[in-house]
Amino acid sequence: MTTTPKKTHIQMLNEVNYNSIEMAPFRVVSVGSGNWGTCVAKIMAENTRENPLLFNQEVKMWVYEEEFEGRKLTDIINEDHVNAKYLPGIKLPDNLKAVPDLLEAVKDCNIIIFNIPHQFLEGILKQLKGNIHPKARAISCLKGLRVDENDVELLSDIITKELGIHCGCLAGANLAIEVANQKFSETTIAYPLPSDYVAGDLDDTVLYTLFHRPYFHVHIVEDISGVSIAGALKNIVAIGVGFVDGLQWGENAKASIMRRGLLEMIKFGELFKPDSKVATFCQESAGVADLFTTCTGGRNFKLAYRMAQTGKSANEIEEEMLNGQSAQGLITAKEIHELVKNRRLTDEFPLFETIYQILFHGVSIGILPYMLENKWSVSKPNYSG
Amino acid sequence: MTTTPKKTHIQMLNEVNYNSIEMAPFRVVSVGSGNWGTCVAKIMAENTRENPLLFNQEVKMWVYEEEFEGRKLTDIINEDHVNAKYLPGIKLPDNLKAVPDLLEAVKDCNIIIFNIPHQFLEGILKQLKGNIHPKARAISCLKGLRVDENDVELLSDIITKELGIHCGCLAGANLAIEVANQKFSETTIAYPLPSDYVAGDLDDTVLYTLFHRPYFHVHIVEDISGVSIAGALKNIVAIGVGFVDGLQWGENAKASIMRRGLLEMIKFGELFKPDSKVATFCQESAGVADLFTTCTGGRNFKLAYRMAQTGKSANEIEEEMLNGQSAQGLITAKEIHELVKNRRLTDEFPLFETIYQILFHGVSIGILPYMLENKWSVSKPNYSG
Repeated sequence: MTTTPKKTHIQMLNEVNYNSIEMAPFRVVSVGSGNWGTCVAKIMAENTRENPLLFNQEVKMWVYEEEFEGRKLTDIINEDHVNAKYLPGIKLPDNLKAVPDLLEAVKDCNIIIFNIPHQFLEGILKQLKGNIHPKARAISCLKGLRVDENDVELLSDIITKELGIHCGCLAGANLAIEVANQKFSETTIAYPLPSDYVAGDLDDTVLYTLFHRPYFHVHIVEDISGVSIAGALKNIVAIGVGFVDGLQWGENAKASIMRRGLLEMIKFGELFKPDSKVATFCQESAGVADLFTTCTGGRNFKLAYRMAQTGKSANEIEEEMLNGQSAQGLITAKEIHELVKNRRLTDEFPLFETIYQILFHGVSIGILPYMLENKWSVSKPNYSG
Repeated sequence: MTTTPKKTHIQMLNEVNYNSIEMAPFRVVSVGSGNWGTCVAKIMAENTRENPLLFNQEVKMWVYEEEFEGRKLTDIINEDHVNAKYLPGIKLPDNLKAVPDLLEAVKDCNIIIFNIPHQFLEGILKQLKGNIHPKARAISCLKGLRVDENDVELLSDIITKELGIHCGCLAGANLAIEVANQKFSETTIAYPLPSDYVAGDLDDTVLYTLFHRPYFHVHIVEDISGVSIAGALKNIVAIGVGFVDGLQWGENAKASIMRRGLLEMIKFGELFKPDSKVATFCQESAGVADLFTTCTGGRNFKLAYRMAQTGKSANEIEEEMLNGQSAQGLITAKEIHELVKNRRLTDEFPLFETIYQILFHGVSIGILPYMLENKWSVSKPNYSG
C-alpha cells in the first residue's frame, strides 16, 4: 500500500502567486446561509457597520434560492431582515444582503467565509474556481476533515488547493441558536499569517474586528490542524458519551469518556497532523469547550443514547430519528477506523475503535470499560505521569 | 508584607528519617468513613482480598462512633457489612473492619488513607502524631488546599509535615454513590516516589493494585500540586457555571466558563505551585474530567444556579438550601481572592475575581462577559496562539 505524499499547508501556500495585497476597506461575503451561516453573517454585518474604515459596510451572503411561504428566501431576508427558513425570529442587520447568484455574491470580495454543509463544498469550489478575487483570503466555518483510508486532509487545505487562496478556520462551542440570540460564547479562529503577508493584509486584528462581539469572544491561534481535528473527532466522542449516558452509568462515566476522547483526539493529531498543538485541544473553545457542548446533546449524542436505551442498531435509530440524515459522528467513526486500521494504529485509539465496533458490528456497549482498561497503557505518552 | 518561605515537598521529605522500608504484605487503614471514605475502603478491601501476597487481607476503617437506629455504627458495619448511615444500600466486603478507636485503627498499618472532611484534619493529625507506624506512607483523598492571604499549602504537605510521612493524593471525577454502585469511572493518584524509596516500598504498582478495579480505573502521576489545585479551584468554576446556567445562557456559555476556569486553574498552578503540570489539569481525571462532573451538579453549582434564578444573595440561598453547611466553593472563592489580591495578581484571574465579586459584593452576574472580555489578553501566555 503506497500513499501519495500530501503537500503541507505551507507548501501549498508557497505555490500561490500573490502580488501586493488589497487593502482596507475589506469586502466580506458569506458563502452559505443555513442557521450557522446566517448567524456568522449577522455577526460580521454588526461589526462591518461599526468599523467603516476597515470594512465595506455591506456583507453579502450567498443564499441557495428557494421558496418559503410563497416568497423567495432572498427577498424575505432583504426585505424583512430575517432568515425565516433557517434562523426564524432573529432580526438581521439591514447591511446584510442576500444574493442568490454565487458568482455575483463573491464578486470583488477579498474575505470569503465558507459556511455550507460539508457535502456541498466540492461543487461550490468548482463553481468558484477562477471566479474569485485573486487576492482573496478565506475562513472556513465547515466542521471536519476529509478522511480516506490513507490520509487526512483539512477542509481549509482543500479550499486553498482548489482556489489558490489562503484559508483559516473558525470553530468553537457555538450552538448557532444561542449565538444568534446573543447569549455569551467564545470561539476560536485558526489563522496563521500567509507567507506572502504584507502590512494591511488580513491579520489577527482584522479578524478580531470582524468577528468579536461583546457576546461572542474571539481568540485567534495558528493551529488549523488542531481546530479541524477537534471539530471532526468530537462527534465520535459524543457517541461514546451518549452510550454510557443511555445506560445510565452516571456523570463519572460521561466525564471518563470525554477525557479519553480528548486524549485520543490529541493522539490523532500527533500521529496524522504533527503540527497540531496539544493546547488547542485542551485549552481552546474549539477544543475542550466544543467537546463539552457536543457531548451534552446534539444528533450524535442522541443517536447513541437511544441505541443504548433501546438496544436497537445505529441504522434503526437513524431511520427513526433523523429522517434519512446521517449523524456525522457515525460517518467519522467509520472513516477513522479505516484509516487507523490501514496504518496499523488501531491500538492507539481504543475508545474510537470500540465505538466503531459498537456502531457497526453489534458489539455490546458494556465492553467499553474493559476495552479502555486493556489498552490503558497504550496512550501513556499523552499522559503527564 | 513579608511571607515566610515555605518548604517544598521534597525539602520536607528529606527531613524525614526513614530506615529500611517495611515490605509486603502491606497493612491498610482508611481514616474516615463518610460516603467517599467507605467507598474507597470498599475498593481497597476488594483488592486486598484478591492480592494476599501483597496486602494483609483485612482493611481497617476508622469510624467516628455514633448511634444509628439504636445500634453502634461500627457494629452495623462489622455485622451487616453496610454503612447504613453514610452509604446505605451498598454491600461492603467482610474483610473491611470498622474500628471506633483511631489509634487502634492505624496501629501497625503502613498505608494510611486519609478520607475525612477538611475541617477535621488538624485534630486527627494531632491525635495521630507519634502514634503511627514509623515507616507508613499516606494517601490523602481530601479535596483542596489550605489557603491564607500569603500562600497556599497542599493538604498532603500538611500531613507530611505533621506526621513525618510521605503522602500522595487521590482525586478524580468520582461521585461517591456512582463508584459505590460500581459504575465505570476513572481516578488520578498523585504519588511521586519518596527520596528514601527502596525496592519493595509503596510504588505505582502497589498503588495500582490497591485501587484499580474493572469499574474504577487508576492513573498514576507525580503531580500532587496540580491534582490538589484542581480539586480546590473546580468548586469556584462550578459556581460560575451555575450562574450562567441559572440565567439560561445556554450550553455555549457554560462551556466558556469551564474553559476559562480551566485556564485560571492552570495559571494559579503556574504562579503559586510552579511544579504543577498543565497536563494534569487538561488531561487527567482529577483535572478536566472532575471539572466536568463538578460543573454539572453538586452543591456549588446549585447554590449559584439558585442565586441567578432568584436574585437572592449567597447567604440567603445557603440558609435555604444547605442547612447551615457552607458550599466549599464560596469559601475557596474568598480565600483565593484574598491571596491573589495580597499578591497583586487579581488581574490574572478575571473569572475567579468576578465570581467573588458576585458572591460577596452584590455585583450583577450579567457583568461576566464584560469582565472576561476586558481581561481577554491577560491570560494569553496560557493560550496556544
